[in-house]
Parts: sequence; structure tokens; C-alpha cells
Amino acid sequence: MDQATFRSELAQQLRVDSVRASTAAGSGHPTSSMSAADLMAVLLDGHLRLDFDHPDNPANDHLIFSKGHASPLQYSAFKAVGAVEDDELLTFREFGSRLEGHPTPVLPWVDVATGSLGQGLPIGVGLALAGKRLDRLPYRVWVLCGDSEMAEGSVWEALEHAGHEQLDNLIAIVDVNRLGQTGPTMHGWDLASYAARAQAAGWRTIEIDGHDLEEIESALADAESGGGRPVAILAATQKGKGVAEVADKPGFHGKPLAHAEEAIAELGGLRDLRVKPATPDGDAKPHVFDTGSSGLPAFEVGTELATRKAYGQAIAALGDRRGDVVAMDGEVSNSTFAELFRDQHPDRYFEMYIAEQQLIAAAVGMQVRGWCAFASTFAAFLSRAYDFVRMAAISRADLRLMGSHAGVAIGEDGPSQMALEDLAAFRAVHGSTVLYPCDANQTVQLVAAMADLRGISYLRTSRGAMPVIYPPDEEFPIGGSKVVRDGSDVTLVGAGVTLHEARKAADLLSHEGIEARVIDLYSVKPVDSESLRRAARETAGLVTAEDHWPEGGLGEAVLSALADQPTPVRKLAVHELPGSGKPAELLGQARIDATAIAEKARELVS
Amino acid sequence: MDQATFRSELAQQLRVDSVRASTAAGSGHPTSSMSAADLMAVLLDGHLRLDFDHPDNPANDHLIFSKGHASPLQYSAFKAVGAVEDDELLTFREFGSRLEGHPTPVLPWVDVATGSLGQGLPIGVGLALAGKRLDRLPYRVWVLCGDSEMAEGSVWEALEHAGHEQLDNLIAIVDVNRLGQTGPTMHGWDLASYAARAQAAGWRTIEIDGHDLEEIESALADAESGGGRPVAILAATQKGKGVAEVADKPGFHGKPLAHAEEAIAELGGLRDLRVKPATPDGDAKPHVFDTGSSGLPAFEVGTELATRKAYGQAIAALGDRRGDVVAMDGEVSNSTFAELFRDQHPDRYFEMYIAEQQLIAAAVGMQVRGWCAFASTFAAFLSRAYDFVRMAAISRADLRLMGSHAGVAIGEDGPSQMALEDLAAFRAVHGSTVLYPCDANQTVQLVAAMADLRGISYLRTSRGAMPVIYPPDEEFPIGGSKVVRDGSDVTLVGAGVTLHEARKAADLLSHEGIEARVIDLYSVKPVDSESLRRAARETAGLVTAEDHWPEGGLGEAVLSALADQPTPVRKLAVHELPGSGKPAELLGQARIDATAIAEKARELVS
Repeated sequence: MDQATFRSELAQQLRVDSVRASTAAGSGHPTSSMSAADLMAVLLDGHLRLDFDHPDNPANDHLIFSKGHASPLQYSAFKAVGAVEDDELLTFREFGSRLEGHPTPVLPWVDVATGSLGQGLPIGVGLALAGKRLDRLPYRVWVLCGDSEMAEGSVWEALEHAGHEQLDNLIAIVDVNRLGQTGPTMHGWDLASYAARAQAAGWRTIEIDGHDLEEIESALADAESGGGRPVAILAATQKGKGVAEVADKPGFHGKPLAHAEEAIAELGGLRDLRVKPATPDGDAKPHVFDTGSSGLPAFEVGTELATRKAYGQAIAALGDRRGDVVAMDGEVSNSTFAELFRDQHPDRYFEMYIAEQQLIAAAVGMQVRGWCAFASTFAAFLSRAYDFVRMAAISRADLRLMGSHAGVAIGEDGPSQMALEDLAAFRAVHGSTVLYPCDANQTVQLVAAMADLRGISYLRTSRGAMPVIYPPDEEFPIGGSKVVRDGSDVTLVGAGVTLHEARKAADLLSHEGIEARVIDLYSVKPVDSESLRRAARETAGLVTAEDHWPEGGLGEAVLSALADQPTPVRKLAVHELPGSGKPAELLGQARIDATAIAEKARELVS
Repeated sequence: MDQATFRSELAQQLRVDSVRASTAAGSGHPTSSMSAADLMAVLLDGHLRLDFDHPDNPANDHLIFSKGHASPLQYSAFKAVGAVEDDELLTFREFGSRLEGHPTPVLPWVDVATGSLGQGLPIGVGLALAGKRLDRLPYRVWVLCGDSEMAEGSVWEALEHAGHEQLDNLIAIVDVNRLGQTGPTMHGWDLASYAARAQAAGWRTIEIDGHDLEEIESALADAESGGGRPVAILAATQKGKGVAEVADKPGFHGKPLAHAEEAIAELGGLRDLRVKPATPDGDAKPHVFDTGSSGLPAFEVGTELATRKAYGQAIAALGDRRGDVVAMDGEVSNSTFAELFRDQHPDRYFEMYIAEQQLIAAAVGMQVRGWCAFASTFAAFLSRAYDFVRMAAISRADLRLMGSHAGVAIGEDGPSQMALEDLAAFRAVHGSTVLYPCDANQTVQLVAAMADLRGISYLRTSRGAMPVIYPPDEEFPIGGSKVVRDGSDVTLVGAGVTLHEARKAADLLSHEGIEARVIDLYSVKPVDSESLRRAARETAGLVTAEDHWPEGGLGEAVLSALADQPTPVRKLAVHELPGSGKPAELLGQARIDATAIAEKARELVS
């Protein structure tokens, strides 16, 4: 079989298998798969350099289906390369199958979960940055995008950033099939409109007929030539290509074909072709950064420092000890103190500008290649990337996030800059770890622990200076807590700024003969149920105080830990919308300060 | 004083007052204000048509400071027009002052809170859409943007959407001062790079020297001429313009000037000029849509329907009864059934494509003008716009959101499409209402109630059909719950799909002689504490079951309601990352089905 025939046959096989898989499942997106089958056939046969037998080969190309609903095509491609058997293909969307409705990394050839649109390209930017600046390997990052998802702002963040960084190892293949879920896209087949946007962002563009195998071949070859700019291949295609009943017709999104047998016949029937993608050079090794022997920063008890500043010092020191640590920030590195890392390790620092989705996506991309990525911005602005964090958990990504400027305690900047929902948001991420230090030494220890944590970990830091209360060698296990003051009358639970307020409240109470136990709940998730239960048994009840809305934060973490050990709890949190003011004024107004804590404690003991 | 001198003097006054306000506060962003002072002076003097004495005049222009940190400039402008006195100006950032660190609608001339960058332009798109298609009034929407924030994907969603909708009543003024918070922006003073991007999206662009009053005048006049396309004025400016110590120098972002007195002298000292902006035609009235007398849809008990479908029918009927109801969707209207509204009220339906930030921002913009906006997409994808929802609460916006496809019960599509964090995220929004119906009639009643609710309300709907259990005339007050089965041994609490599982569990338990009370907690926030407390008193304890991660959802809402009335609670929720499968398989795997609920109930009564 000559190459042209082989590719044409392979493309038809991918279509047939996409139809078969979705028909077997009774759901799925065959028509969205069929539009990109020719593109994938040519990519697999001679362009993609991916050793499917060794998916961990550091020199492998990466292939991300940003249009994750084209999973039937992706799985059919995995079958065509021999990675998945036909039997397994037909388990698509079954309970327990690796072939989920949208791709996830339970399959070793899938880097990241997709299915929330507009995420593949910004994650590809992260991988491409890793290839250029960290691994320093010539792998390419191929991202198959849908045209509907080009409306997502995150795609434009990616275009902008890749253009700025001149990532010519990044190639977007846009499957312009003209039809979205409900109807035509904004731009239909107007490839020039996509080209103008991408070119404006500094990309090279190639417009092709996405069903013309020769045009695809020359576009891919051209894209591989690099040239200092990322490349967008804009391919005009037909949704449902190859089956007249559905081709280029609205109304067939996300539905198995009504007449699958006829469709398969129209596509030329079953085939069992195998294609062997190129493999990368076997000996290529990722770059290793030099390391030093910096100790972790240490602070004297009784001095004052903001935990955000301790974060900066901690990651800078970690970066010296470990060559795999990288950091990035959303253009506020002089607020988050990520600048301390940048100044010490410029090669491993990434300025992501004010584009929080791209910030998180870059970290996700880099951790695919094993880099230990810390990403920081104001905690309030991490909410901009919440969907990326949610999806990162499904990607089984190891991600270290730092959000600064927590709560009303930031003071004058006002509510737009105050994170008051971050604990709730990050607790409700699968498998997450949520940490909230109250002093500089604790911050350093927690940051060091984060480097070795799996999953999504989140560190909440504060704007203002707070006293150092722990010695530098104190240990803070994840899932632990500290009893910073013992007492058996009542228990006060805080973290961050409210831990210090709780300590002051205990002083107030002590003058009245009430001995309060004070618990520093620095690990909000996982939470130290044992210490909380002990406190519940040994004291009259618990007062929780948090610089956060009442929902989903520290207080409810405590309540959940005590759900089956009923205990009187008084939960203090921020109830009214704050304005500007001095931190102490706002803590007082919110009734999460020492006075308010002491008052609730008195209620419990009386 | 001739016009040129007046404008020049006015601009200097705005600079001086920006310096004075931030110096008085001891914080704030004077240099970011000074760059845009000339632009504002010319806008105020002859272009903006805004009756500051009657901020509710429907014909008023709208002015949004998307770069909200330039609040000193905005407040100085309010002083210059006589809306704010000098005394009040100097309360900037003080506790209790209306002049918060970043602008909020506590000031009647501020439409929306800003300070999270990249939000002003997409909200402006919503206002401009309202002007063109709803109010049908010739007001203009002016948005002052920073250059740093152009990196936000949400800005590109706005450019894309405004271009697509040909919103020539929208004018973006981009203050290209070249310097971000930490250093130079990506594009510096390369106005052409911004112009290429905006033009690619269908905008008309005008490049000017942002300190040349004549260039500004002609740019604003040109922009006002309309021409079928939105206009971006790209103004090259100097951050800190007018004070040599800081002008065009890095390192002065967000800091009051070190030598304020000298700076004020350099700017020519204090002035007390007043400018009177033009006022719009007094008689212009917003368009009123015809209404009909449709009853709300009603469903027969015992039939089955998905709550998402009931939502679509409900808003379509509401739209007939009320001319102020509008709806929009993120290109999934055949999944959310917003298409039922679209088909019946095409004039009041907005297709926002796959751009969830723009989707929410459009609704925020429209509600500024009093439109009752419902926005829908998959609940999982609302997480894409979480920062916009957070900020909408600070904007005191009335916003109705519907998220479909909740939880593992969606089945085969897999975790990327499953909202499992939405209850936590929306509960942790200030002043929010979180509703989760289990049947079609309940959905209709709750949707009708949402139309009259203040603040952010969120309706969680389900993909699959569920039995109708309530008659059409049943009432469902916000903050209420329903005891759908009485019993005094144990209480089962569910909502949505788990309510039906709880009912089945009660049947199972009844065969064993255990009489379970079943509570439908359709109002997750505010929650019906009274009914929960009564159940706690009258039964052995509560089992909660939710199709959601364990954190921040229905279970913790119940625990919070019972915090000071200690009660044994068993909380069932989704703990492991689901894959694909049939809904029943996934509910069983997650252990939130009838079997699991019954098991926990037995523990409580034993």
C-alpha cells in the first residue's frame, strides 16, 4: 500500500473505530472525531515522535486533545498504534474502563485530562516552556483544538504567551469544522479570521483543507521546521466527515450515529491497520540544574514577618537545594515574594503576566514532565483559574499553589483583593491539601513539605507581618495541628491571623479564670481530627475563627471532623461584605478578633 | 480660560487630587491614576453624557474603570464633577468611607466593583448589549482599561464578543503606560501590537499619545461616530506622568508618592476646577418588551423529567409573563434547555458561545440596567467564571445562574463534566442563594422565586430524568425544606438525586421497622435550620447524602446549622475520583445511593 493510500485508509479506520466505540457506548462524540481523522492519520504516520511502549521517555513528543470530547478519535488512534486492543476500545465509557468519556491520565499516553474546553493549549504552553527552558529537549507539543473552544479566553492567553515566548516547539492544529454543540461557531470556515488573531499574537499560521492529505502533510512538515514562532495549522473540516447522513449537518453533536452499520459500510468497513509513530532519539536526557546546599530560612521567635515573605524565602532556598523546583507568578511577584526565587534562579522562574488561567496551566504542563512547580498570585485571583485547578485534580497533577493576601486582614485594598472563599474552593478540590500558616517558620516547613506532596496543594498566606511563635526546627506534619496553649475549659481554634487573635483571646480569658486551649489548625485539609476530638472531649466546646466567609472553610472543616462526636461549636467568620480600613478595624468589624473569640468562649463555658 | 487650558488644568487637578488622596490614605495607586488623567479630563469635558445628579437616568452613559486600582483618579473625577466633596476625597481607604481602595457600587456612579483585572471590558460588553438590544437607548459604554490587564483571557473574550456583535456603543480606552506592577508589560508602548489584536477581533482602533489633549479630543470624537464596530483607543502614556521622580519609572506601582508636597508643587499646586459633563436627553425611555399571560409549566406527579428541562420551560414561561427577563447561555443551550427561552424570546436571548467569563460578565452588565438576567451552562464550567461571580457579589449584582449536569449522576461523560464542587463554591459567595431541586415542579417554583431574589442565586440542576413528586401548586420558600416522609427514628437529608435515594433508603429501612424522616433540603443556602434542629431533637441523628465532594456542600451546610445543637451526623458524599459509567453504578461506587444511606441510618439507630 503506498503512503497516500495507507493514510487515507488509516483515516477511515479512525472514523470507523470512532463510530464503533461511541455506538458501543451509546453516547459520545463521533462526528467531532470524524472531522479530525485525516489530521490525526497524517500526524501519526510520520510526524508524531512518541514511543508508545515507553510513555515516560523524556524525549517523547506530547499530544494533547484539547477537544477532549473527540476521545473516540484519540482512543481509535491508540488502537491504531497498538497501545489499546479492539476489545478495550469497545469498553468506551463503561464503568471501570480506562477509556472514559473524556480522556484522563489513567491512560499512560494521556498527559492531562481534557473535556473542559480551552485548557489543552495553555497546558501545551507549559509543556513547550518546559521543553525549551527546563528539559532543553527538542520534543514537540501538538495540541488538537476545536474551533468552538477558540472563544475561551484561556486560548487567547495561550496564544499571547506562546507568541511572546516564541515557542516554536508548540503546534496547534485547529479542527475548524464550523459547527459547535448547538449551531455554527462565530467564524464558521473563515480560516482567515483565526489566522489574523493568531498572527497578531505572534504565531505563524498555515491554512489548509483538513481533509486533503497532501495539504496536511506539507502543513505538518512546515510546522516542524520551527522558525522561532509557534505554529497554528488552521484546518477547514467537516464535522461527521465521511458519512453523508451527518456530514456538515447541525444536530448531531455528541450523539452516536443512528445508523452505525450503514455508516461503517459507507466508510469502507472495518480495517485493522497498524501505524508505528516515529520514536525520539533514545539517549536524550533532560537538563539537570545545578544545586547548592542552602539551609531553609530560619526566623527568630518574637520577630515579625509576613508569611508571604517567608514563602518567597522558602522557595528560593528550596530552589537551591533542589534542581527540579520551578516557580511562576501572575505579575505580582513583589507582592507574593516569588521575586526572591526569580532573582536567585532566573532560569527556573516564569513570568506569566496577569493571566491566571495560563499561570496554572503552565504549572500543570510542567509537572507533566516531572518539574516541581510552585505558582503564586493573590489568593483572590486564583479564583480566576478555578476550573483549571478542578481539572488539574482530574489530571492527577501535582501542583503547588500559593495565594497571598488572605481575608479582611489585608486592610485598605478592599474586598476585590481579599480572598474570603479560597479555603472553601480549594477544600472542594479532589485530593487537595489546604495549608494556612500563622508564622514564618511554619510557612517554611509547609512549603518544604509541599514540594513532596502529591495532588493539588494550596498555601494561604497573609499580607501583614505576624509574630514568629515557633522555633525554626519545629515540625508541622501535613494533617497535623499544634496546641499552642493548653487549657481544659474551652478550645479556641484558629489559623493564620485568627490563631494570633485566639492567643490574645486566651490571655483575656485567663484573666477571668478561664483556661482556654488554643489549637493552630494550620492543616485545614487534611484536618487533625484526633486533636479536635480530644479537645471536644476534654473541654466545654470549640470556638472556631477564620478570616473567610462562613461557608466551607476552617469552621466547617472542624464541624466535619466532629460530625459523629457531637460537640458544641461556635463558628466565627466574616458575615458582612467588608470595605477598606485598617486590618484591626476590619477584623473587629467582622467579629473574628480576640474580643469576639473570647465572647463566644464565655458562652460555651457558662 | 480657553478649552485647551481648562482641560490641561483639569488633568493636573485630577493628578494632584490622586496624589493627595493616596497620600492621605498612606496607600493606593497614584502613578496608575496619573497616566490616565488627560484621557479622563477630555472625556469628562464634552464627551461623557452622564447626569451625576440622576445616576439612575436610563439614558446615562456608563463609565467603568476596569483598572480599578486607578480609584484615586476615579474619585478625583467625581470630585471634579461635584459629586464628591474634597473632605470626602481625603477619606480614601478609611474605615467606613465610600471611597474604598477599589471602586464599588456603594458610590451611585459606580456600576460595578472592579479591582480584579480584566473584568471591566466584558461587563461593558453586557451593558453595550443591553443598550443595543434591550434598552434600545443610545448610551455609550466607556471602559478605561490598563495595559497589563490586556493579558487576561477575559479581555479577549470581550474583544471577540463585541466584535462579533458589532457593538459600536462600546469604547475601550486603553491606558498603555507600559509598566505593570513588577515591570514592563509584554508589549510596552507597541500600540500596533494591541491594535492588531483588536482589529483581528473586528474592532476599530485609534492610536494616540495619551497626553496630547488634541489627539485625545479627536480620538473620542471619532469613537463617538460609531460606524458599526466597537472602538479601542490605544493611548501611549507615562505611568506617574507629571512628576519627574516617578514618571515612566518602575518601582512605584501601588505606592503613595514619597514626596507628595513637592509633587503637588511640580503639578502646579491645588486647583478647584469644576467640570460639568453633558447630560443625556431627558426623555429617553428604555424599551419595554411585550408580555403575555403564560402560566408556569406544571407537571403531573409520577411522570419523569430532568430538572434542567424544567428550568428551560420555566424561564421560557417567565419570559412571557415578565418583559424584564432575559437569558443567555454558553453554547450548550440544548443541554441546559435555555433553547426553550431562545425559541420563544429570541430578542431577549444572548448566545455567549464557549466563553463563561463573558457569559457571567454579560449578565452582570445587563443587571446594572435592571434586566433580570439568567445565565446557564454546565455547572462544572461555571467554575471557569468563579472570579466573576465573586466580584459580582461585591458589585451587589442580582444574578441568576443555572448550572446543569451536577455530580456523578451524569454518568458516562466522566469527571470533567461533573460538577462536584459547585455547592461549596457558590455557598462561599457573599449573600448567595444556593438551590438544588429534585423535581420538575419544584424547579419551576424556584426559578420563579429567583427572578425576585437579590444577590447571586444559583440553581443546580441534574442531567437525568427524575420522578415528579410534588404537585404543581406546592410552595418552596427560599430557606425552607420539605419533610417528604415523616419518621422519628432517624433523619435522612438529601437534595436533587440524593433526595430520591433517601426516599428509597427510607423504604428499605421501613421494612426493617426503622421509620426514617426524609428531608428535601432544596435550599442549601440559606438552609432551614429550624427543621434540621427539630429533626435533630426528634430522631437519633441525621444522615446527609450529596452528589458532591465532602467539603463545603450540603453536609457541611447541615453541620453548620447544627453547630450549637450537637447532633450525631453521618455525612455521605463523593470521596473518590469517579470515571465513566451508568449513573446508578457511579452513585453506588460513590456510596451516596439508597444502600449506603440506609447503612449509615442503621448505624445511627443501633
